[in-house]
Amino acid sequence: MQIIKYPLQNEWAQLIKRPLSEKLDMADLVKTIFDDVIKSGDKALIKYTNSFDKVNLKSIQVTQLAIDNAASQLLPELKNAIEVAKNNITQFHKAQLPTIEKIETTKGVICWREYRPIQKVGIYIPGGTAPLFSSLLMLGIPATLAGCTEIIICTPPDANGQINPAILYTAAILGITKIYTVGGIQAIAAMTFGTATIPKVFKIFGPGNQYVTAAKQLAQNYGLAIDMPAGPSEVLIIADESSNPIFVAADLLSQAEHGVDSQTILLSNSEKVINNTVEQLNLQLNHLPRKDIATIAISHSKAILLQSIDECIALSNDYAPEHLILALENTINWLPLIANAGSVFLGNYSCEAAGDYATGTNHTLPTNGFAKNYSGVSIDSFVKKITVQKVSEQGLINIAPTVIAMADTEGLWAHKNAVSVRLNKP
Amino acid sequence: MQIIKYPLQNEWAQLIKRPLSEKLDMADLVKTIFDDVIKSGDKALIKYTNSFDKVNLKSIQVTQLAIDNAASQLLPELKNAIEVAKNNITQFHKAQLPTIEKIETTKGVICWREYRPIQKVGIYIPGGTAPLFSSLLMLGIPATLAGCTEIIICTPPDANGQINPAILYTAAILGITKIYTVGGIQAIAAMTFGTATIPKVFKIFGPGNQYVTAAKQLAQNYGLAIDMPAGPSEVLIIADESSNPIFVAADLLSQAEHGVDSQTILLSNSEKVINNTVEQLNLQLNHLPRKDIATIAISHSKAILLQSIDECIALSNDYAPEHLILALENTINWLPLIANAGSVFLGNYSCEAAGDYATGTNHTLPTNGFAKNYSGVSIDSFVKKITVQKVSEQGLINIAPTVIAMADTEGLWAHKNAVSVRLNKP
Repeated sequence: MQIIKYPLQNEWAQLIKRPLSEKLDMADLVKTIFDDVIKSGDKALIKYTNSFDKVNLKSIQVTQLAIDNAASQLLPELKNAIEVAKNNITQFHKAQLPTIEKIETTKGVICWREYRPIQKVGIYIPGGTAPLFSSLLMLGIPATLAGCTEIIICTPPDANGQINPAILYTAAILGITKIYTVGGIQAIAAMTFGTATIPKVFKIFGPGNQYVTAAKQLAQNYGLAIDMPAGPSEVLIIADESSNPIFVAADLLSQAEHGVDSQTILLSNSEKVINNTVEQLNLQLNHLPRKDIATIAISHSKAILLQSIDECIALSNDYAPEHLILALENTINWLPLIANAGSVFLGNYSCEAAGDYATGTNHTLPTNGFAKNYSGVSIDSFVKKITVQKVSEQGLINIAPTVIAMADTEGLWAHKNAVSVRLNKP
Repeated sequence: MQIIKYPLQNEWAQLIKRPLSEKLDMADLVKTIFDDVIKSGDKALIKYTNSFDKVNLKSIQVTQLAIDNAASQLLPELKNAIEVAKNNITQFHKAQLPTIEKIETTKGVICWREYRPIQKVGIYIPGGTAPLFSSLLMLGIPATLAGCTEIIICTPPDANGQINPAILYTAAILGITKIYTVGGIQAIAAMTFGTATIPKVFKIFGPGNQYVTAAKQLAQNYGLAIDMPAGPSEVLIIADESSNPIFVAADLLSQAEHGVDSQTILLSNSEKVINNTVEQLNLQLNHLPRKDIATIAISHSKAILLQSIDECIALSNDYAPEHLILALENTINWLPLIANAGSVFLGNYSCEAAGDYATGTNHTLPTNGFAKNYSGVSIDSFVKKITVQKVSEQGLINIAPTVIAMADTEGLWAHKNAVSVRLNKP
């Protein structure tokens, strides 16, 4: 961990600059696979699964039998844990369901917003070493609560052509039955265009590697929406003398173990806090099973000593971290100053790991500075808000002079006329 | 207007297919101008304004004097109209300001969402024949209500290097003082990177032509957010025998006058309604000042006769119109069936023109089928929702088994450890 002391404010931007991910030029590959899926549908999916995942699938849809059998393959503790997490996530997201408020802006002119689910949504769950059933909870629960009528899952098969039972079990308890063993660019293509087996969707959610991200970006050119631009995971911790170096070090490492490109930043107004935390970090690092990954991530991470907590917050706002831990006294007093962050963890016992799984908040959050202009996933991400207006005859009479004067100035005569024909009707 | 009678359901998709806009290949031009603005800043802006707008600007910022003088150049009726529209839009959007609800998902685990404005936003207002001060109201009001700390406007100069006083006056009554006489790709580039004069923003709003749209899309690659993908304006009207053909024809034409690529669709379960409306349309068309534009738009528009209002709604949901007028009896009974639309107008007196200017709803709406997965602009578009969690020591004890079991299954040992060190603290 690099330690930087009292940088000048004009050096901040350089300090918190995120490393540019090596932009692999994937445009051609993504386009080729998209075109192939448009042309050959399921056949193309099987072909690419064969070449990328080294699995020869007979069918790309998971059978109901496999879904039903998943429960018996999980330990009771894990099933309990999934249940608790599901309950907390459900409680938090249910409270986000919008209510309708009708506003009479002018006598006879009533306006409101109706909420409708995005009808068809696709959830992408990456493969790899860890079965990310927690991400499935984070996306499947709000999709279900919002009332999306078609919810599908694409996730790549393991070496045996199987999906991890924790993912199947989670899908089952959410009532999601359309699960496809397809990953990567070809999965995004399938959800974008539809195939004989996989339905086309209107919005794609879920994490993924650079290939999946590039494919999601291209999907937008075909009329689909996506949850948000994705980048490596990040934590920024602001710690004062009330913080516990053992806890802070553990939190930095729980971010660092995600990947070699994970971003971790520690800010403090106390040199002692920084020194003690870095010492603890080096101790704990040695015991990590994913030590190799975390060591690389930590090697490009920074501990920055600043003059005050106010300065720490100013720098954090410039960085706009995905996760922000305030290991401070009186966190609630500092919270109003936080302008940009994905999710905030208050005090010594609110560790990021708690929010990743079980507090109930969503762990799908804006990275790479997008916390300046994006929110994390919530019920909002699964609904559209349709404005509605009901104007009575008297209501139209009341706003007619306004519409007519404005349309006239904008040179839109037929707009004026649409009002006039109603006022002057025979 | 083409009249189509009782098409088979498998013919619908073809019928409502939006014309592919001729994709001008603008990528090179946009990139060139972006690079030039990065390199030369204001000098590049002045150069491109000279070559595209044929105006030689001395300064790109509108003076406070020019803003102050705008009021005296407007008729009192127009100033009144802007005031009424502002009040209605303010009332409707103010009610959208979010409230905070804290949820205790587990004893000792309290979660909520804090709302923060997007700090810096840019509003683009196109030039051309009509000064779109109404769009400035629709974007400036929610930006102000949300509390955005920096709100700037870019809009191209007219042939004399001036901005229409209706735009300056509207900005003034909203309290927006940073107005720049720059349009097109170079304006989007300036807001994306910042120049000596124009500040960089985090999100860009506002309508524009294909060049502006392409530039907004590229801006996303540099970390900016945009309001939504833009396309030609659209109206779909569902009319039954209770509708008034004069009104419906006027509404179709008020959409058609926007541009030759405007989309207008009429659906009905009554041949008589269609015939009478088309007859009225042809009558009214002759009196339009923008007849040339509207005639072209109407020539590719369709009136479709279907078996029932249910079928009309099903087809409308497939099309997902920007504006949907329900010229029906008992509109409130049909509304729950509407799955996809930008804004809905209920009954014979709720004309689209009313919503364009003065009902209070926002007229920045999803086009081109994006009503399936996007909402129109609202307060939501100007704020981020930051999740917050405060976990007490007992709260962490309560959810610890859940976090530990899940992290264990996902292979994230340091996540487990972040909980364990807290439970086992000496």
